[in-house]
Amino acid sequence: MLAFSIRSAAIEDVDSIHALIAELAEFERASHELVTTPDSLREVLFAPQPWVWAWVAEVDCKVVGAALVYKRYSTWKGPVLYLEDFVVQSEYRSQGIGAQLFETCLGFGREQGCSRMVWQVLDWNTEAQRFYQRYGAQFEPGWYNAALEL
Amino acid sequence: MLAFSIRSAAIEDVDSIHALIAELAEFERASHELVTTPDSLREVLFAPQPWVWAWVAEVDCKVVGAALVYKRYSTWKGPVLYLEDFVVQSEYRSQGIGAQLFETCLGFGREQGCSRMVWQVLDWNTEAQRFYQRYGAQFEPGWYNAALEL
Repeated sequence: MLAFSIRSAAIEDVDSIHALIAELAEFERASHELVTTPDSLREVLFAPQPWVWAWVAEVDCKVVGAALVYKRYSTWKGPVLYLEDFVVQSEYRSQGIGAQLFETCLGFGREQGCSRMVWQVLDWNTEAQRFYQRYGAQFEPGWYNAALEL
Repeated sequence: MLAFSIRSAAIEDVDSIHALIAELAEFERASHELVTTPDSLREVLFAPQPWVWAWVAEVDCKVVGAALVYKRYSTWKGPVLYLEDFVVQSEYRSQGIGAQLFETCLGFGREQGCSRMVWQVLDWNTEAQRFYQRYGAQFEPGWYNAALEL
């Protein structure tokens, strides 16, 4: 059994977290969409009024996974926690690391008084879908994401 | 030409805004999903630290449309403005009310330093899609919305 630990992200982790975000973007075939930098991520994660939170998974003092959340307001459901990014490096999967990261986010959402945690998953990412289904997650197709540059 | 005005939501507008949200949920075939109340909406819109903003469209002192936004953090794009709800009562459409509400949100996003405004649109809601396309909005299919109750 692999020894790992989950902890709140520290300022020194930002480069590793950003590298994981880039890895996930590449897997999601969207590297061209990534315009943030480690510096801009650091600014948000360690703002005087925190509104984005992250955790990392560590193995042998190396960051191998991360999860990043923030609160949203659903006019249907009230305050909900949004899982913006959730990634474990492929060679460290199936060891319980993802489960513990994911459950840390669920616990944080409960502490924050959110009625649900929400996120998005690609329709072709069946590996992730299977993971989420073990928790009883509901998937809703039928919505397009829309965007307009400002 | 119909006379209307767009202004920031006041505390007295909350019942009307909630009624519009319920109207939109019904149109989106999701009335059973609506669990918020006017009271819970009031609390969020007029919190000591505002994090959700709304505007209303008025005709003859009657609220006939509303838009509600908040900020999100995209690990790919940085801070973005999210258009959570946007509705004009059907009998008041095609008069420029929606355009002015929508443009108010775009302007607010620019003021807040957001790089883009994002939202979701149902795949079958072609009327809304046509409206957004006039602004050059990009639609991205292929993502499921996922949720887990806490």
